[in-house]
Amino acid sequence: MQVEITREYIEQVEEAIERQDREFILSTMDEMHPADIITVLYELDANESRYVLDQLPAEIGAEILSDLDNDIRSEFLDKFTSEEIARYINLMHSDDAVDILNEQSVQRREEVIAHIDNNEQAAAILDLLHYEEDCAGGLMAKELIKVNLNWRVRQCIEEVRRQAERVARIYTVYVVDDRDKLLGRVSVKRLLLSKDDTQVKDIYSEDVIWIESYKSENEVVNMMQRYDLEAIPVVNIQGRLLGRITIDDVVDVMQEQAELSRQLMTGITENVEEDDSVLRISRARLPWLIIGMVGGLLAAHFMGFYEDDIALLPAIALFVPLITATGGNVGIQSSSIIIQTLSSNEVMFDNIAQRMLKVFLVALLNAFIISILVFSATYLFKQDFTLAMVVSVALFSVVMLASLMGTITPMILDRFGINPAVAAGPFITTANDLLGLAIYFGVAHLLYSL
Amino acid sequence: MQVEITREYIEQVEEAIERQDREFILSTMDEMHPADIITVLYELDANESRYVLDQLPAEIGAEILSDLDNDIRSEFLDKFTSEEIARYINLMHSDDAVDILNEQSVQRREEVIAHIDNNEQAAAILDLLHYEEDCAGGLMAKELIKVNLNWRVRQCIEEVRRQAERVARIYTVYVVDDRDKLLGRVSVKRLLLSKDDTQVKDIYSEDVIWIESYKSENEVVNMMQRYDLEAIPVVNIQGRLLGRITIDDVVDVMQEQAELSRQLMTGITENVEEDDSVLRISRARLPWLIIGMVGGLLAAHFMGFYEDDIALLPAIALFVPLITATGGNVGIQSSSIIIQTLSSNEVMFDNIAQRMLKVFLVALLNAFIISILVFSATYLFKQDFTLAMVVSVALFSVVMLASLMGTITPMILDRFGINPAVAAGPFITTANDLLGLAIYFGVAHLLYSL
Repeated sequence: MQVEITREYIEQVEEAIERQDREFILSTMDEMHPADIITVLYELDANESRYVLDQLPAEIGAEILSDLDNDIRSEFLDKFTSEEIARYINLMHSDDAVDILNEQSVQRREEVIAHIDNNEQAAAILDLLHYEEDCAGGLMAKELIKVNLNWRVRQCIEEVRRQAERVARIYTVYVVDDRDKLLGRVSVKRLLLSKDDTQVKDIYSEDVIWIESYKSENEVVNMMQRYDLEAIPVVNIQGRLLGRITIDDVVDVMQEQAELSRQLMTGITENVEEDDSVLRISRARLPWLIIGMVGGLLAAHFMGFYEDDIALLPAIALFVPLITATGGNVGIQSSSIIIQTLSSNEVMFDNIAQRMLKVFLVALLNAFIISILVFSATYLFKQDFTLAMVVSVALFSVVMLASLMGTITPMILDRFGINPAVAAGPFITTANDLLGLAIYFGVAHLLYSL
Repeated sequence: MQVEITREYIEQVEEAIERQDREFILSTMDEMHPADIITVLYELDANESRYVLDQLPAEIGAEILSDLDNDIRSEFLDKFTSEEIARYINLMHSDDAVDILNEQSVQRREEVIAHIDNNEQAAAILDLLHYEEDCAGGLMAKELIKVNLNWRVRQCIEEVRRQAERVARIYTVYVVDDRDKLLGRVSVKRLLLSKDDTQVKDIYSEDVIWIESYKSENEVVNMMQRYDLEAIPVVNIQGRLLGRITIDDVVDVMQEQAELSRQLMTGITENVEEDDSVLRISRARLPWLIIGMVGGLLAAHFMGFYEDDIALLPAIALFVPLITATGGNVGIQSSSIIIQTLSSNEVMFDNIAQRMLKVFLVALLNAFIISILVFSATYLFKQDFTLAMVVSVALFSVVMLASLMGTITPMILDRFGINPAVAAGPFITTANDLLGLAIYFGVAHLLYSL
């Protein structure tokens, strides 16, 4: 059911909570998707949300808790006892359960696990807790359907039926040997189309793409996108089937990565949203503003060496914004292109020399065009040949050097295992401001004293 | 099968093509995923790629053509006759077929359609060609499985079997009435678990989320992500089931959107990659560089009014990079936060006044901190109280105004239906440079003449 959540409805819910009207909550939310109920909860305060959650069936509550925004969830769960959390954890998919446990303190985590009464679930969770959150192992869930190579179709369909309750989305049935080594897959469709006493080994396909548990989130995304997969099995180093990652989790990872890279590019250090507190947004934004400020003060200090030149020839100062802005723009463009290549993780046979040659040629062409334009404009505007030469020669050098810096910095960061997107934001801009000024005043000093 | 494509293998393929060794191509590519074959093709020239494609079974060829990068594909297909293209189109999913046809000229498109000998496919394509590419109708495929409300389970399973070949991923079976109106869904699992003569109307679920064909790409992405869907049915305004969008296409849309927004933020106007030609990369980057250049020249022109002040007090010029850089950083941070809110399309009940108050408070806090720091540094560094006052007061105003501009510009663009991410890049930076300089020199003129 698709519902539109109106302000009136929120108000009705608030009134219903006030008068403890359980019926109103249950009857209106019965047909709602958990994602829509979450939208309603976000408009309520913590106590009101708690009241709503307590009225809903535990399965719906578990889905809601799985999908809540991390920050809000961890604040919200602080008011729950370990036993209450365990009751919901019991009903969750193992990957969501582990995400929630990872948000708790170590002591709290132990308490919650002790209260999980479904043994299979507890074992799955303990297993998943071993993996780092941002690797394939940390993304996978234990819920999947696997059948043995030697089973017959009848037994497989039996297994599908048995597991169907627990595994929300089947997608494919994995085929393993007696030691749980992943051998291939067989679709439910294929099982349906085969005779009951056919053996799995006669109908399964070896054509299965898997990923090792230690691979990074990024590799998971690339792999699932490259091969258009809706689920990917995760294996250990011996090829044993450990779990499965589904596309909905990968979509969330992609969204997070896109936001993260946008934030890195804009110099925001924490994951903030518009509805976070003033202090939090301010704190997330300050570090890069301060770095930019230090860069600006360094620029002032540096230009101080040329204060006499400026007094003599104030026209020089007029072109400072042109120089710094162009350096910044070119640097960000260059880093953006190389970061895209680095993150797409494509097989690249081109060697470094060839790539650098291309960077050099693009820079040369753009530097040439921009310099000619600026030379003409400055000459027309100031009627000063030397000044026009100084500005355009400096600009030419700035474009060349900013391209080089913008390309090399992300490559170096990537080599050292640092997210190269860091280099696309204020870092490149600040560095290029200083570089640009050094070139500009250097050229001015040189050409004017000729 | 997971293969690693080595340089040696590419060379072997090239040699095999040279000596027309069909066997080598077929035997080594037989087990390869089409996505891996594409990686090989990208390393070959057009004629070599054509040779490889001609050797492969037509079904594999169709998958490869579906997955090729648009630009490369449209160049590659220029060398094919309409009949040859139609042979592949026959074997594709309807959505991929339409994507390819949309890349052809109108005349060529007609020719290809005339050669499609599968009538069902031709009808599906003609239907899909009506929709704009970037709306739900343009993303959907006609392949799906639907059953009538009055059918029995036996007949449904029959239909699933019949359609299984044509529909790669079933996910769910849609339930419609006699007039094809979408009523709900029933899972294959559920069909399997039910008795053969049960009627669909007794087991189906009305709990289905659909989208109208005219909704935008962005709404499709938000919807599928919000409700964790792997497929969404598309209906017309009367609720008739038209087609289905699957998650793999949405993942591609998300990737494109992330790249597009990164490019908008960095002032690159076309979708370029590192392996595009020098001319193309250069052309994509120039427009914003020129806009930045014009901004820089305007700044020079503007500062020209204060040339005498600069000659008298060259220290003023030293802080120009600090002012412009801070204005740019603050502006980009502000626009980034508001763009995130706008694109996430969340229900927002907060009114504009409240949100502006928060923007104002964050700006005030950061402006205050930055100004105090800059005042202290400038005073220590220059021992000039008036100068320190001028720089810090100007900086304070710049932070406040840049925050406001960075927040309001994307909102205005969004209101006029322009992608607000346009405002996050060089546009905001250039505007803020000019704004910052105006404030700075205005303040300097005011405070010094006091």
